[in-house]
Amino acid sequence: MREILATGVEVVPVAGAGDSGTVPVDALVLTNLANGRWLSGFSGSAMVVVLTADDLLVITDGRYATQAPAELLAAGVDGRVVIANRGSEQQEAAAGAVAGLGRIALEAEHVSWSRRSRLAAEWFAGAELVPSTGVIEGLRRRKSPEEVARVAAAATAADDALAEVLPRLDERPTEGEVAAELDYLMRRRGASGSAFDTIVAAGENSALPHARPGPRRIEPGDLVVIDFGAIVDGYRSDMTRTVCVGEPRTPGDRIYEVVRASQQAGVEAVAGGVSCAEVDAVCREIISEAGWGEAFLHSTGHGVGLDIHEAPSLSGRSDEVLAAGEVVTVEPGVYLAGSGGVRIEDTVVVTDEGCRRLTCSPKTLIVA
Amino acid sequence: MREILATGVEVVPVAGAGDSGTVPVDALVLTNLANGRWLSGFSGSAMVVVLTADDLLVITDGRYATQAPAELLAAGVDGRVVIANRGSEQQEAAAGAVAGLGRIALEAEHVSWSRRSRLAAEWFAGAELVPSTGVIEGLRRRKSPEEVARVAAAATAADDALAEVLPRLDERPTEGEVAAELDYLMRRRGASGSAFDTIVAAGENSALPHARPGPRRIEPGDLVVIDFGAIVDGYRSDMTRTVCVGEPRTPGDRIYEVVRASQQAGVEAVAGGVSCAEVDAVCREIISEAGWGEAFLHSTGHGVGLDIHEAPSLSGRSDEVLAAGEVVTVEPGVYLAGSGGVRIEDTVVVTDEGCRRLTCSPKTLIVA
Repeated sequence: MREILATGVEVVPVAGAGDSGTVPVDALVLTNLANGRWLSGFSGSAMVVVLTADDLLVITDGRYATQAPAELLAAGVDGRVVIANRGSEQQEAAAGAVAGLGRIALEAEHVSWSRRSRLAAEWFAGAELVPSTGVIEGLRRRKSPEEVARVAAAATAADDALAEVLPRLDERPTEGEVAAELDYLMRRRGASGSAFDTIVAAGENSALPHARPGPRRIEPGDLVVIDFGAIVDGYRSDMTRTVCVGEPRTPGDRIYEVVRASQQAGVEAVAGGVSCAEVDAVCREIISEAGWGEAFLHSTGHGVGLDIHEAPSLSGRSDEVLAAGEVVTVEPGVYLAGSGGVRIEDTVVVTDEGCRRLTCSPKTLIVA
Repeated sequence: MREILATGVEVVPVAGAGDSGTVPVDALVLTNLANGRWLSGFSGSAMVVVLTADDLLVITDGRYATQAPAELLAAGVDGRVVIANRGSEQQEAAAGAVAGLGRIALEAEHVSWSRRSRLAAEWFAGAELVPSTGVIEGLRRRKSPEEVARVAAAATAADDALAEVLPRLDERPTEGEVAAELDYLMRRRGASGSAFDTIVAAGENSALPHARPGPRRIEPGDLVVIDFGAIVDGYRSDMTRTVCVGEPRTPGDRIYEVVRASQQAGVEAVAGGVSCAEVDAVCREIISEAGWGEAFLHSTGHGVGLDIHEAPSLSGRSDEVLAAGEVVTVEPGVYLAGSGGVRIEDTVVVTDEGCRRLTCSPKTLIVA
């Protein structure tokens, strides 16, 4: 871990800072909670993590006096916890940890303008602060087996919740009722919460990729896009199924078959060493051949882990290459205003030879 | 609204920016979602709002092409929506709105170091960017009757959920099960979600003010702290009750009576023109007289609205004065490691003569 300090961190150009490219630093200060958690094991809602060549310091407040040291220990992390009141006490702890060091990296995307100024003037006065980008995010891409197991547990909670809800769709529930049921059932199956705001979008709403569940009732013949996930031990899953009570209206069945073929081809294309853009192209080609290329409104997928959207991006504009251990989604979709939309999504873990699906719900269009 | 541009915005000292105090600006650029929503009525998950003397511009992406204009109209806001792809298209829209203007305020706490630099170099090159603080947050303190009605609706959803859950506490549910039930029942009663992570803390866990619900079962004699709220139309409620199945163990009953008296006195002290510190002192004095002053580990309350924690802060260190229309919590607590804790909390709306409670659940310690 500490070798990143010598190897260097990527910095972004900001006004008043000279360097860009990769520069070595003497310390890395994390203000992003997911990055701090990943490095230290501590899952609290407030922390500053300071990494130096010979120290890993987690600074948090009195609410976490018991939890923080226990979580570092459980994670096998060789570091220290300092419990300190916000403000001057925390400043003192951080300043002590970096005393005499010359160049300190902050997370440029995860520190506000005012906080950066306060850190520069008070916490780290005298040091050179460099605006780093993506340092921990890059390391978070490849998951350990323990991390994959947590995503898999989250995926199972979501699979089980969906299996329980689908048989009840013929009772004309509202989108909002189905979303509330899924969220509740995931919690009952061990999830600490939902991975993001659950989407249940029926009929005309299914044509909106980010619809919010509302009072619309699910009627026979509606395409229903259900996009949701669970959180287990901090790690998230992400899955979409599109279903219908009875036969879908035309061209719903045809859209479904095309998206289903696209998604399967995408999953089959995933493997270590394959470029993200290639997976996106495989999915997009099948949809374009069917004449709906313009209706595939988003990119093919994204990494999943402590955050619901992580690196890499499975997009046509991406220059990233997949590697074994990465956990990503494959989720092509077609959205036709007036007719409705279909999206099918799995969360998979990349292997050298291909990938393994973590979300396992059947892909059956007609569910009742 | 637009008079704030001439009256001026409060700025915070940052490296490289000269002024501090209150300075007039030609435009205010909002990157905080709650602030942007409050000003424009638009509730999307991505927006930049630009306010100038003769324009209110909401910049968002294609997902919100229908929703954004509809929400501005519904809110009666005289403004424009520009739908643009992130990056250069959005930049062009923002730059056009502020063309020729000299001094532009950004939200210093709500814009990252890297984004501020990008805005300075690309979006608003040539303008002077000043780091404003609390401009919209200050305006959000006093709620309109419509805003109060939304908090009240959220409070009612929470009241109803609690009334349904309490009779089942004698079935030895786990903390996590009770939290999941409450969250589900609030959704069934019209909430779009929970106002924050619901706390259900039983027995020894009740002594932790920010405990997370876990597998611990609720047993007869346990103090159980239940702290939760709903979201309705974006506005949040916040309520805590402490309950017990059967008689609490000593000194639980005594703690309860003291916190109950403290909370009631606090609510009775709230009125327009009263200082926040005074309400805190009223609550604290009763707890201190009982000998538990050191065990009241947090401040007495906070504002509630689009965010769960807003201005003002009902703390001993606050120099703020309450005003009619503000919505605040009153939530004293006592936490004794080993014995357990008690917190009682209501959300109230301040009036000239006193306050009106929005959370209305009974304050009964023994519930089954």
